[in-house]
Amino acid sequence: MPIALPHHDGSSLFVSQPAPEAVSLGDTVRLRVRVPQGWGPASKVWVRSVQDGEPRYDAAIRLGAADGWDWWEAAMLVANPVAKYRFLLEVTETHDAGAPAGEAVGSTVGRSYWNLNAQGLFRRDVSDAADFRLTTFAPAPEWLRQGTMYQVFPDRFARSEQADGHPVPDWAVECSWDEPVVGTGEQAATQFYGGDLPGITGKLDHLQELGVDVLYLTPLFPARSNHRYDASTFDSVDPLLGGDQALVELVAAAHARGIKVMGDLTANHSGAAHEWFVKALADPGSEEAGYYYFSADHSSYESWWGVPSLPKFNWSSEALRRRFITDEDSVVARWLKPPFSLDGWRIDVGNMTGRLGAVDLNHQVARLIADRVRGINPNAALLAESTSDAAPDVTGEHWQGAMTYSNLTRPLWSWLAKDASDVNFFGSPQAGPNRIGAEDFLATHQDLAAGFSWGVRQNNMNALNTHDTARAATVMIDGGPAVGAVLAFCLPGVPVMFAGDEFGLKGFNGEDSRTPMPWDAPDLVRNDLRSAYATLGRLRKELPALTGGGVRWLHAQGDALVFIREFSGSSALVFAARSDASVIVDSSVLSEAQLQALGAAPRHHCGKVTSPQAGPSGVDGVWLRAEGPSAGVWALPGTAVPGR
Amino acid sequence: MPIALPHHDGSSLFVSQPAPEAVSLGDTVRLRVRVPQGWGPASKVWVRSVQDGEPRYDAAIRLGAADGWDWWEAAMLVANPVAKYRFLLEVTETHDAGAPAGEAVGSTVGRSYWNLNAQGLFRRDVSDAADFRLTTFAPAPEWLRQGTMYQVFPDRFARSEQADGHPVPDWAVECSWDEPVVGTGEQAATQFYGGDLPGITGKLDHLQELGVDVLYLTPLFPARSNHRYDASTFDSVDPLLGGDQALVELVAAAHARGIKVMGDLTANHSGAAHEWFVKALADPGSEEAGYYYFSADHSSYESWWGVPSLPKFNWSSEALRRRFITDEDSVVARWLKPPFSLDGWRIDVGNMTGRLGAVDLNHQVARLIADRVRGINPNAALLAESTSDAAPDVTGEHWQGAMTYSNLTRPLWSWLAKDASDVNFFGSPQAGPNRIGAEDFLATHQDLAAGFSWGVRQNNMNALNTHDTARAATVMIDGGPAVGAVLAFCLPGVPVMFAGDEFGLKGFNGEDSRTPMPWDAPDLVRNDLRSAYATLGRLRKELPALTGGGVRWLHAQGDALVFIREFSGSSALVFAARSDASVIVDSSVLSEAQLQALGAAPRHHCGKVTSPQAGPSGVDGVWLRAEGPSAGVWALPGTAVPGR
Repeated sequence: MPIALPHHDGSSLFVSQPAPEAVSLGDTVRLRVRVPQGWGPASKVWVRSVQDGEPRYDAAIRLGAADGWDWWEAAMLVANPVAKYRFLLEVTETHDAGAPAGEAVGSTVGRSYWNLNAQGLFRRDVSDAADFRLTTFAPAPEWLRQGTMYQVFPDRFARSEQADGHPVPDWAVECSWDEPVVGTGEQAATQFYGGDLPGITGKLDHLQELGVDVLYLTPLFPARSNHRYDASTFDSVDPLLGGDQALVELVAAAHARGIKVMGDLTANHSGAAHEWFVKALADPGSEEAGYYYFSADHSSYESWWGVPSLPKFNWSSEALRRRFITDEDSVVARWLKPPFSLDGWRIDVGNMTGRLGAVDLNHQVARLIADRVRGINPNAALLAESTSDAAPDVTGEHWQGAMTYSNLTRPLWSWLAKDASDVNFFGSPQAGPNRIGAEDFLATHQDLAAGFSWGVRQNNMNALNTHDTARAATVMIDGGPAVGAVLAFCLPGVPVMFAGDEFGLKGFNGEDSRTPMPWDAPDLVRNDLRSAYATLGRLRKELPALTGGGVRWLHAQGDALVFIREFSGSSALVFAARSDASVIVDSSVLSEAQLQALGAAPRHHCGKVTSPQAGPSGVDGVWLRAEGPSAGVWALPGTAVPGR
Repeated sequence: MPIALPHHDGSSLFVSQPAPEAVSLGDTVRLRVRVPQGWGPASKVWVRSVQDGEPRYDAAIRLGAADGWDWWEAAMLVANPVAKYRFLLEVTETHDAGAPAGEAVGSTVGRSYWNLNAQGLFRRDVSDAADFRLTTFAPAPEWLRQGTMYQVFPDRFARSEQADGHPVPDWAVECSWDEPVVGTGEQAATQFYGGDLPGITGKLDHLQELGVDVLYLTPLFPARSNHRYDASTFDSVDPLLGGDQALVELVAAAHARGIKVMGDLTANHSGAAHEWFVKALADPGSEEAGYYYFSADHSSYESWWGVPSLPKFNWSSEALRRRFITDEDSVVARWLKPPFSLDGWRIDVGNMTGRLGAVDLNHQVARLIADRVRGINPNAALLAESTSDAAPDVTGEHWQGAMTYSNLTRPLWSWLAKDASDVNFFGSPQAGPNRIGAEDFLATHQDLAAGFSWGVRQNNMNALNTHDTARAATVMIDGGPAVGAVLAFCLPGVPVMFAGDEFGLKGFNGEDSRTPMPWDAPDLVRNDLRSAYATLGRLRKELPALTGGGVRWLHAQGDALVFIREFSGSSALVFAARSDASVIVDSSVLSEAQLQALGAAPRHHCGKVTSPQAGPSGVDGVWLRAEGPSAGVWALPGTAVPGR
């Protein structure tokens, strides 16, 4: 049974004047925490922050009560660009009616102290690692935070008639659209299906029907592989994709429909066939030789994971910094400007960029890129790949969010995993994900999400899978991907579909998941989730709590998860189950009006979800029940804050 | 009952070729993990490291078994200056005798994966925050790691005859040695008892009898307070303390007895009466004005916690860097050189040094200081104060260890706290520590220790209290300080006595704890712990496991703690209880020879500790029993590693 506990999450309900996204260095912000009246009660509350490296405590005052919760508020100086804080709550135990002789009823017996941080509530001291954090950096564009993203791997998405005229490159193995993808070995990178940009432009209806408003394209530069992460130039769009003009037209067409378009840039390496590297290799004295890490005798060089086709950039080169980032017509700059007008970048291998041995220029390079991107278009997005624990690198100072897997994708895979799913995950030797219960889903999620500021959490990509991973449909139980999608769309972050998710495509690893889209092969559609995705995308537009609300967990045990996204005007409750489950939502965790609203049919559901008005006799709350893998989303009245 | 679990701690038993202290960038180290045969069994084991920002996995091989444990070993490249790693263990569940028809006995049912990091064992993914870490920085001197430290607050330690000749300074309120200390208000900083350096020199017998081999002195420079953290010059020893010559003589006398001497330096601020600040204040155009943060109109300046007598240094000043650190005769340098020959520095307010608002030069300044110190004397120590969560600043790259409270002092206070101890801890508004059980002691300890490399953990100061805190004797239950001392001496770190601990002195805050030593007032001795401390110091010399061994927790529940420090040649088991307690040490957690040795009387004990040969019938293990607050230390045979 869900039990009400003290709560804060960094969202606007808890941070006021100014809003969390608009905080500046030197501001004094008002931070709130809500304490259920059935807990404690708290006799005193403080915000404990770290200022110039030293802990400080600001006393909170009790604002008042609403719906069974006491709200406390404290003012905190934002002394540093990343302001870390947590709450300290004092509970005074007093003598009750049975007080021993000589001691008054209500007199103090003892005091206990509780720390509330982004991982939860602790009756002991805690490290600063999971502190909440407010940042003072320029926020990400609202369109990103509120968007629904769709990822396209161009070779496999759609092929226009123009593509028929393209010669097959020398490195490629030509494949017809219905030929099966080879997931391992050499052909994984050389199978060439010939999808192109005009092909994508021709499918924008499909994206719009899915409710997509951000299109993210993996690399478009000429290369010697189907994935194009080994660019041979950054100066033109691959003619095999239709060339520069095709990009201009795609972006214009997308913009006309209100769809933003993001590109993908390798800041860690180029291809070995890159014009810069070719010069560098030929001429040790060339400027370009300084862009890479050559051995003293120029006979070898550093590359990504030791793969020689991907020579690693040496970011100590000022000339590289100019050419790639800061020049008027740099790589970073030119594709964001007209006529191309990309709306932002996803930076490949963001976690390794600028790092080699004793050299760590990662944050420096990221900052340079971020400044350049903002300088061109303050409304542009900048995300970075960081497959594992991304939080230390993604403070919001440069990358606005992470394409990461550790705080959502991986725990979702684990919670929804089928019996034996012998799938690959990047370099991990695990034969498939651990199978875990909802309590461990939540523990993993909080462990890996706690290091992000609330602002960054909203920009992180929430994907069930990508072009680099197995497909959820291969990893998860039947019905799992639909339940997972509800979580990806309803938890903080930017939901991402990888093209083909809407058709239930499968794949045992990233390469195997790059299936050509089954446009004209209905028999290859494994599971038509188009309307489910469309509904979820619409929900994010209709229920502002899903894009702006906080998140409070009400239940996480075994087969079932329940949380509420809370906003001032309205809230949304999400119930997800991986099999038959019933959960009692205790009357203490929601307001009377919210409990009433829960009696109504869910706003969206997959599988079978029911919620009778009342629980069994003697239970003060509402039942939620699921039959099989299911999820429901309820629109609820907003959360009252006293004195607001 | 203690249960055996997979274990690694970064100590030399688990890190080989080279030893943990001698690892260099680019080395390949062999990392070991031991897995109890009653657990799992592990079917595969990997080391998961982070290299240039990206996770890597190196498969381990099973070395063999010893005493019921499987030992696994993997080779890991030390790719970066701080190499983070953890272990991934696979457990294969197989069909047992009751296998369903068609499935063979021994065939795989499923696999589970476990992560082992510095916080413990998790059957789920974890963040990198608590990874083990190996570092490639110059190690701290062995004398520090193996030392027993004694902290002296000079005004209150001992007064030589010379002191009678000193005039009382204008800021001071003269006090006779037996006058009570005033813990709050203005007099806390102005009460002047006149302790001096010749006084300390005269008491070196006392230190030696206690087994002390590192003497740490709070500041010695002239100032306008009894604590002298507000230096008025860094160029001379306060004449009130005996001047430069008294320091030369003290250090020489200490060295003659094999005692190292460390000084205390404020890198965050000077006093407002400092000759630099006086110039700076008078002349906005002076070089010295650039050492501080003045407002544009020179009417105000930044200071420590807003205290105007402690103006904060501006470390962007190159001139300050030269004068304080890098010049031939800089502040940092000159006192480490002859004739003074201090053996190292404790840096005051290390956590705030170089930090102000958007400026963070902390690690840069720390690195400059560290390079300078090492340049003068590679055998010098460099510690820094960081009262709270010190790990992110103390990687071993510059500060070798921290004077911190969060990973040991605070949880010890909490575990051993008496009912109502209304004591102060720095800025915390808590009315005394939380009272917690041993499980939360361990959780707090591991939470706050996990962020340190094994090397740094050994250099951190393990204090029950300092000149900046309440005294353990005030905070803890009767008998608590003696139990706490056993833990401070036997857990990884440098044990520290604050002068007076050996006499059981009390104090409700730092100022109140600065009691003049009761040399000639036996009635002011609250509790004579001299022989207990002397024994503990001797134990650290006699049992190398206490200074070089790993640490494995065997029990942490309620009133009792048990851990073992493991080393190749010998080990040491420590049992600490805060009240009557009995613990069964299960036969699986120790070797047969170790269990046998446990039957003998403890090597050292305080309170009443017994260990019968065998447990009650039906229990396979050994009982440890305590009556009241007690602790025992047993010398045990070493831990066998197969193939070594």
